[in-house]
Amino acid sequence: MPDTPKMLVVGSVAYDSVDTPTGKNDDQLGGSATFFSVASSYFTDVAVVAVVGEDFDPGDGQMLSNRGIDTSGLVRVEGKTFRWSGSYREDLNSAITLDTQLNVFADFAPELGDDHRDVPFLFLANIDPNIQASVLSQMSTRPKMVACDTMNLWIDIARPALVSLIENVDVLLINEAESLQLTGCDSVALAATDLLAKGLRAVVIKRGEYGAVVFHKNFTFAVPAYPMVTVTDPTGAGDSFAGGFLGYLSSIDDTGDDAIRRASVVGSVMASFAVESYGLDRLRSLSTTDINARFDAFVQLTRFHPLGGGQGLPVQAQFNN
Amino acid sequence: MPDTPKMLVVGSVAYDSVDTPTGKNDDQLGGSATFFSVASSYFTDVAVVAVVGEDFDPGDGQMLSNRGIDTSGLVRVEGKTFRWSGSYREDLNSAITLDTQLNVFADFAPELGDDHRDVPFLFLANIDPNIQASVLSQMSTRPKMVACDTMNLWIDIARPALVSLIENVDVLLINEAESLQLTGCDSVALAATDLLAKGLRAVVIKRGEYGAVVFHKNFTFAVPAYPMVTVTDPTGAGDSFAGGFLGYLSSIDDTGDDAIRRASVVGSVMASFAVESYGLDRLRSLSTTDINARFDAFVQLTRFHPLGGGQGLPVQAQFNN
Repeated sequence: MPDTPKMLVVGSVAYDSVDTPTGKNDDQLGGSATFFSVASSYFTDVAVVAVVGEDFDPGDGQMLSNRGIDTSGLVRVEGKTFRWSGSYREDLNSAITLDTQLNVFADFAPELGDDHRDVPFLFLANIDPNIQASVLSQMSTRPKMVACDTMNLWIDIARPALVSLIENVDVLLINEAESLQLTGCDSVALAATDLLAKGLRAVVIKRGEYGAVVFHKNFTFAVPAYPMVTVTDPTGAGDSFAGGFLGYLSSIDDTGDDAIRRASVVGSVMASFAVESYGLDRLRSLSTTDINARFDAFVQLTRFHPLGGGQGLPVQAQFNN
Repeated sequence: MPDTPKMLVVGSVAYDSVDTPTGKNDDQLGGSATFFSVASSYFTDVAVVAVVGEDFDPGDGQMLSNRGIDTSGLVRVEGKTFRWSGSYREDLNSAITLDTQLNVFADFAPELGDDHRDVPFLFLANIDPNIQASVLSQMSTRPKMVACDTMNLWIDIARPALVSLIENVDVLLINEAESLQLTGCDSVALAATDLLAKGLRAVVIKRGEYGAVVFHKNFTFAVPAYPMVTVTDPTGAGDSFAGGFLGYLSSIDDTGDDAIRRASVVGSVMASFAVESYGLDRLRSLSTTDINARFDAFVQLTRFHPLGGGQGLPVQAQFNN
């Protein structure tokens, strides 16, 4: 039996068909809750709440269970599993959706079990903000940290519900373009200021191959993406980032500033593995050594020695004004 | 009199007319050599080699001299100064050229003075690679570091000369899209590998508002751009980056790995000032305090505590394989 979960994710489990510059792959296991739970399972005990259809491969459920993921909230109902098809041929940073079949996901109305109502960390993956709000309202105690994702569709058709949700969560993870769409701002720095004013502790602006910028109420932190020779499939990178980010925070049970900075790097580490293969192939088969080696690579990628002792840069004397 | 120069830049001095999301500004002082020399003048004694026409405002030359820039190689000839007009309305990261009038720049054939032939740092700004090579061949001693920039035009019409030049310089600074165009690679990591194989010590891939990645033969280093609330005018950001980068290296007379990392941050610092105003308005009026405060902001923007003592991330026990 898995331990009592320390984290809950509510989102989608899907079968995806993707077309990328390296090739095509059909009907691969995907979905926001899947990527998030697999990425976070390296760090913490996570439970997944999602819905699948009769076509869901029991082996895929077993894979999640084998990773210590609590799948008691993974409900199988009559019908077909959510299917998504997209192309990254034009832009690796942004998929063009070719087809969406919501199937059983269209009627997704999650009801949390009793043992899922008092988790300290909650991730509301990209779904209708009304459903995200419903999940949050089912918590018996307010989690230590609630984070959510969203997408352009909800900004278009459910903006009031989305804004209301944002006012009640701690961290919003959002794509760059969607942060501008949501706020009407011209720059992510302005968009983040606007969003933080709604009461968020932090806004994580996701920028695909350019990494992410975390606008926290106390600081701003930029983390690069790992410079990949080949990106095989970007699907799930954002949810893998979120899984690393929240999974790490959950594992150390700390949401302080230094923890958030390090968690952002862990997020970028997990996203970098996600894009190395189609679907979950790479993300689900990592070793402790793999993860720490990639984290160390991020340390090397970003470290520089600031000048110590208040010495400052060697600016020429005439400019000492 | 300025000191004997420690660095030389050969490039353009121009009058630019720009259209940006914040407005329009006509006939502002610009050009690669101008931005580079002003940015580097905070750190080192730089000499500029360029050509201007009869319409060049003596006050603009005086502004450079007042900054300690050696303008003895700034030649005034019959005709009009280089004029460029561009728009950033569609994309702040990439200008659309509306008009280019090369004017006196069309016949630019720099002849270095004797006191400019043995500088330890040389920047060959974006001009015809045949001219860049001619300047390099005029050096009496091989500089400690030669860096160059280029653009899509030269990749299109002078590729063999450009490749030959790259084989003879130490650092190439190049835009992301142009690095892919030059190498035919799909990713900047691949492009950098290809370019380093030509003998470069480092390739600096410039990514506009996403910062830069330095692919050095010994390491890879990512530096973000400063998250600006408003970018007023991106013109000159790349040359200001180069000026901060090489100006800092020249000032400490060190091209070691740690120096290159810190220089990349100084480059991003100077680029961040360049985009805050039209043309050189902000870049030319910085104090030592301004520069050090922005450098400190980059330290805050990027620092995180790696886990010490070989402790590693708290990956769950079942994955210790």
